[in-house]
Amino acid sequence: MDKIEHIGIAVKDIESSNDLFAKLFGKAHYKTETVESEGVMTSFFEVGPNKIELLQATNEESPIAKYIEKKGEGIHHIAFAVEDIEAEIERLKEEGFKMIHETPKKGADNKIIAFLHPKATNGVLIELCQDIKP
Amino acid sequence: MDKIEHIGIAVKDIESSNDLFAKLFGKAHYKTETVESEGVMTSFFEVGPNKIELLQATNEESPIAKYIEKKGEGIHHIAFAVEDIEAEIERLKEEGFKMIHETPKKGADNKIIAFLHPKATNGVLIELCQDIKP
Repeated sequence: MDKIEHIGIAVKDIESSNDLFAKLFGKAHYKTETVESEGVMTSFFEVGPNKIELLQATNEESPIAKYIEKKGEGIHHIAFAVEDIEAEIERLKEEGFKMIHETPKKGADNKIIAFLHPKATNGVLIELCQDIKP
Repeated sequence: MDKIEHIGIAVKDIESSNDLFAKLFGKAHYKTETVESEGVMTSFFEVGPNKIELLQATNEESPIAKYIEKKGEGIHHIAFAVEDIEAEIERLKEEGFKMIHETPKKGADNKIIAFLHPKATNGVLIELCQDIKP
């Protein structure tokens, strides 16, 4: 794993959170993107080599809606950048980790992604993400 | 803010979590440190420009013991690296953020640190940290 690609933060109201995090970082978010298949609106802030992704649910069935209902707003997941997501999934499975996605799928921000099951990772929801190569 | 310096993860048993995260990252932690004033044992893993800090409570009054009792194991805080922590505290106070520490204090891993109050940051516990200059 190369670095923390981003940290995902579950928020109730992405507009007001965009203002809040803009004040925190001293600069605005650089993009927004809705991922309908995941039921999320996202916005991204750059912090040096890393990003912060704010996530607001677009419907009540969204994993973000369920997360906020259960735990409240806060840090939802950590995403690590990897060079070869399929090789990394194989390595992690051999190490005994359980994947939510055994096959990578399209995520936000021009990535293919896969999540690990948090039961095997100390309650931390971990995402692998790889740039989609042109 | 320059980058995500580290993500702090609250764990019950740092020994078994060290094994777990070593498998996740494909390499062992590079240091351990106990911060008695905070009631924590820590271990650090490097992931490119970022770090993961595992935190185990050393006593029942530790903030980590209270966190795990309330929320279970998981992501506890995000730390951002800053060049000048006192200037950053002033800037954030002017933006309306509330600091837990208005004066920086000694943290683990050769840093001075200050936490922001999570009530003003969407439930995310945020730490600022600056290298102690020689």
